[in-house]
Amino acid sequence: MKLATLDLGGRDGRLALVSRDLARAVLTTGIADTMQQALDEWATLAPALSALSDALNAGTAADSFPFEASKALAPLPRAWQWLDGSAFHAHGELMAKVFGISNPQHDQPLMYQGMSHRFIAPASPVPFPTEADGIDFEGEFAVVTGDVPLGIDAGAARDHIRLVLLINDWSLRVTGRAEMATGFGWVQAKPACSAAPVAVTVDELGDAWADGRIHLNLLVDWNGKRFGAAHGGAMGFCFGQLIAHAARTRDLCAGTIIGSGTVSNPDYREVGSSCIAERRGIEILDDGAARTGFLQFGDRVRMEALKDGQSVFGAIDQQVVKA
Amino acid sequence: MKLATLDLGGRDGRLALVSRDLARAVLTTGIADTMQQALDEWATLAPALSALSDALNAGTAADSFPFEASKALAPLPRAWQWLDGSAFHAHGELMAKVFGISNPQHDQPLMYQGMSHRFIAPASPVPFPTEADGIDFEGEFAVVTGDVPLGIDAGAARDHIRLVLLINDWSLRVTGRAEMATGFGWVQAKPACSAAPVAVTVDELGDAWADGRIHLNLLVDWNGKRFGAAHGGAMGFCFGQLIAHAARTRDLCAGTIIGSGTVSNPDYREVGSSCIAERRGIEILDDGAARTGFLQFGDRVRMEALKDGQSVFGAIDQQVVKA
Repeated sequence: MKLATLDLGGRDGRLALVSRDLARAVLTTGIADTMQQALDEWATLAPALSALSDALNAGTAADSFPFEASKALAPLPRAWQWLDGSAFHAHGELMAKVFGISNPQHDQPLMYQGMSHRFIAPASPVPFPTEADGIDFEGEFAVVTGDVPLGIDAGAARDHIRLVLLINDWSLRVTGRAEMATGFGWVQAKPACSAAPVAVTVDELGDAWADGRIHLNLLVDWNGKRFGAAHGGAMGFCFGQLIAHAARTRDLCAGTIIGSGTVSNPDYREVGSSCIAERRGIEILDDGAARTGFLQFGDRVRMEALKDGQSVFGAIDQQVVKA
Repeated sequence: MKLATLDLGGRDGRLALVSRDLARAVLTTGIADTMQQALDEWATLAPALSALSDALNAGTAADSFPFEASKALAPLPRAWQWLDGSAFHAHGELMAKVFGISNPQHDQPLMYQGMSHRFIAPASPVPFPTEADGIDFEGEFAVVTGDVPLGIDAGAARDHIRLVLLINDWSLRVTGRAEMATGFGWVQAKPACSAAPVAVTVDELGDAWADGRIHLNLLVDWNGKRFGAAHGGAMGFCFGQLIAHAARTRDLCAGTIIGSGTVSNPDYREVGSSCIAERRGIEILDDGAARTGFLQFGDRVRMEALKDGQSVFGAIDQQVVKA
């Protein structure tokens, strides 16, 4: 199934199913009003959602209409919990080298809790107070869980994955360095994330879902120019391990979003990066200094992932603006 | 006004007003069903809530009933955002000394984003997976905000404070040290917090609300023995400054909870502490080694604040149990 949230009133919008080719949509009227409601009652509601999805894809769903991805909200316009990992070892090792840290952590995932009371719609302008904060994007894959019990193991955790998302985790690098030094993690450096318009179930990914990882390239364009196309299969920890890490001392509520961290590959010089900080790190290692600046107001950032030439999640395509 | 959430079904419970002496309550039927709803529409609903509160305190409210604090939920059983500061300089300086950090940060508040999809009811048992994590309590005051715009200053921020809470921010110290070292902040070390049953408006505090601070002693008892009675007036940053810090790069949604961090006073050897970690720090400074151990399963922790001999928020009184 592919699902989206349409901007039809209320902070949580209205849930819709979207056809595999993203061409048409149908409201889930009578089944669930919102994405959160569908997640809260997934076991009960999934059969009816699935039947309607099949009808939509067969062209037999009544009341279907053209899907306008640019008018969708984030699949979850707000969520009770956003826990973002840093699961790509290539990125961690590079950053450790740049900052002179001897041992990047590989025995368990890095993870922080971020702002979840708003996820920005995929075509909305994204406001920041000042360019001086070092505005950066971070292309990530993420999963949305159902209710997850405390103490679950990584294998069982995978069964609680309900949906897969494409996320831009906007990051303020100047602010972020200062916040990291406190040990308290990020608040000011991590304002709201953006999300691609369509959430997909793992079965929808076919062979692009394997080993608890998303085997797709995350295409990142900055002002119309390809910046990165790193592959999601290179995660050092799979999503099951990230969920188990999050649930070691707490249970997770339905609608918890777990992020992979910046998608990054060991051959980053060839495939590019999913954030500017990583490219700057490569420049520092190669040339002794970073040449690439952070984002400026007016810049556009686009993210998408294709399978067999077709957009899986729809695109995030946004302009950075002054708040 | 004093408000509480009663366990009458649903994850968000039912909103009630509570009399000043915590003896009686009345449901806010017809005004607002839940605390979150009251916060979302505060400007519109506050006059009717206030009128009903006046009637309750005058003994003229129809359908009032005895308030059983031990059966209340947390005032906000779940919240969209929990941002916890560390605003008491005495605590920060002590911890810096113990850990050999030269310059504790005093130019701006320390803050992390914590778990907010559940706040534990004031008399519920509190489950943890293992004593080996170093289970500790942290007594704090907190405020609940309305909608706060990005970029607000500290003075204006105070006008967005809707309610004051008493919180126990449960902390796992062994896990926490490792998570701090990553720079990503705490996830496993900070499971759900507990909250005292009654949320109060600032006008209800009288002269105990001044300078954006709560001028009350936070009484902490561990297994029936007084452990601390530190005063909330010693905050190095006021709640207006904490809100402004949180809102520098994001707006805050109604129902955001902002915590003070562990209440701590410079004369901690006399007044005691609001967490075990602080007492252990004092022992390390005085005697070279910590004597006091962390919590064990079966231990009880009680927190309360009195004004003129009367409980302001009701008590948190809980037992630590094995998950």
